[in-house]
Amino acid sequence: MGWAIALHGGAGDIPKNIPAERREPREADLRRILDIGVAALNAKRSPLDVVELVVRELENSPHFNAGRGSVLTTNGTVEMEACIMDGNTKRCGAVSGITTVVNPITLARQIMEKTPHIYLAFDGAEAFAREQASDIILFDASHIFNGLETVDKSHFITPENVERLKQAKEANRVQQDYTQPIKTEEKKEPRIPDGISKLGTVGCVAVDSLGNLAAATSTGGLVNKMVGRIGDTPIIGAGTYANKFCAISATGRGEAIIRETVARDVAAVMEYKGLGLKEAADYIVHEVSPKGTTGLIAVSPIGEVTMPFNTTGMFRACATEDGFTEVAIWHSE
Amino acid sequence: MGWAIALHGGAGDIPKNIPAERREPREADLRRILDIGVAALNAKRSPLDVVELVVRELENSPHFNAGRGSVLTTNGTVEMEACIMDGNTKRCGAVSGITTVVNPITLARQIMEKTPHIYLAFDGAEAFAREQASDIILFDASHIFNGLETVDKSHFITPENVERLKQAKEANRVQQDYTQPIKTEEKKEPRIPDGISKLGTVGCVAVDSLGNLAAATSTGGLVNKMVGRIGDTPIIGAGTYANKFCAISATGRGEAIIRETVARDVAAVMEYKGLGLKEAADYIVHEVSPKGTTGLIAVSPIGEVTMPFNTTGMFRACATEDGFTEVAIWHSE
Repeated sequence: MGWAIALHGGAGDIPKNIPAERREPREADLRRILDIGVAALNAKRSPLDVVELVVRELENSPHFNAGRGSVLTTNGTVEMEACIMDGNTKRCGAVSGITTVVNPITLARQIMEKTPHIYLAFDGAEAFAREQASDIILFDASHIFNGLETVDKSHFITPENVERLKQAKEANRVQQDYTQPIKTEEKKEPRIPDGISKLGTVGCVAVDSLGNLAAATSTGGLVNKMVGRIGDTPIIGAGTYANKFCAISATGRGEAIIRETVARDVAAVMEYKGLGLKEAADYIVHEVSPKGTTGLIAVSPIGEVTMPFNTTGMFRACATEDGFTEVAIWHSE
Repeated sequence: MGWAIALHGGAGDIPKNIPAERREPREADLRRILDIGVAALNAKRSPLDVVELVVRELENSPHFNAGRGSVLTTNGTVEMEACIMDGNTKRCGAVSGITTVVNPITLARQIMEKTPHIYLAFDGAEAFAREQASDIILFDASHIFNGLETVDKSHFITPENVERLKQAKEANRVQQDYTQPIKTEEKKEPRIPDGISKLGTVGCVAVDSLGNLAAATSTGGLVNKMVGRIGDTPIIGAGTYANKFCAISATGRGEAIIRETVARDVAAVMEYKGLGLKEAADYIVHEVSPKGTTGLIAVSPIGEVTMPFNTTGMFRACATEDGFTEVAIWHSE
């Protein structure tokens, strides 16, 4: 037994031939942010703090579809979602329709801690965020800013995502994670600056050496989604879940993950069928979820970690206290 | 085997001494609407049509907390939620933050059938509703209006709910289902016209003689809730769920139902632990969910029906093809 941590930057149809200059910044971010999580676990921060901290970093990176870097709705706006859950208490918080909060995951945590509710969305969530953001700015013991900051909506919109939306509209369809844009004769190369037509959700799960578990997920949603669309990320039991058996963050096609209650089902198979973490996660991802739809990261109270996916790839990283580290995108051959 | 249907009008702390003139209109509505559902099943309507039809009727009644009769947010507004799910296909639709749609359950179904998404909320959901409402008005074979109608927000606000909100604000707390208002010395009698300080969610589950299952739930939420609050009703696996094992609609304290993924867990205990419908539902309601928080209605593919609750009461009704009928509020002694 010891701590373990896993994080993801989205699962989907990630082409194996994406050029190194498009792949490497994401790998570097995964590695850098994994180190931040590991340092926090070594500093005895609670898993709830660790998953929030790690997801904040993933939200702040423009390379992933959450916070800054969120993909755009059909109206060209950003509507972000996030969810956090504590395994011991099953306390949880969730947000949807966020347009001005730099770190939606911190807003989700504050809803969990400061309201009688679990889940706030759209104008009501923004109003609550503005109230909280006016509070004193918080720095933790390591002088890391840990508060709730609101900014102009333009902060979240990257040129890459403006281009992604344009391509999705030209293709006249709602694009799924990492799908290559439909190519016409004239344009053999995808025109999106980074070569990936849709970025995925981000998430983190962590367990400390006492077996305390937590999960967090954050996303900009689906490129060209209808305004008001809610995906799997904020849904307890779909994109995010933690109890005493495991902590799960899922990514992929939101509607499939909702329908299969993916995150709860991994835990339910452990709880009701007696399977171990890896067996339970593999069963849900490879036997239950439709192929090409689902990836997840999971940790158990005894420090096990698993990161199965049934898509082409999943940006992911993990580490355990006994020294194992992995940063990867595709299946190992 | 044969068809079966169950419906509910909310679970909570329903005082046993509510006067007959306050109890009887609700019992009469349950009976009348049960008959509509039974007639539809006898007419070979699909379970998906039946649960939508029954929940529309419950939404149209001012006696239940859904559609007309919805309780009010802390700002005095109505924000309705609904969800529908088909057991065979696991197709589903959900809405939150609805302010002008007469029948949110029909909007949920149209999202399921006409968009690539499952769940739309707030302004985006309203915009979609306005588009759909402009379509041709639909009457089914029985000349029952079956379309999507939008109205002025005042349609939903009843004097009883204005009074409920006032009392909840005076008590300075978010009231749970049916809790008696906190009494001061001066006012021994609750001042709410119908004696019930908060009304509950409504829902229906149905199975036809071929074993096809469907579930639907609709609500106004929690009295004095924060603007933007999302409860368990629209969350697939929390307030609403159907697969090939069962169809479930839950009611009670939304936050507890979300945390326990109540509806999915009844089905998961059947699927992964091999329990029957009644055992599974009793296990989740009586062994897992905190006392005083949860009620649910459930049907199985072989026409079983069960309606357990761990609250004082649950407005409920059911019928099966072999002639069994029940309309009840409290536990039988």
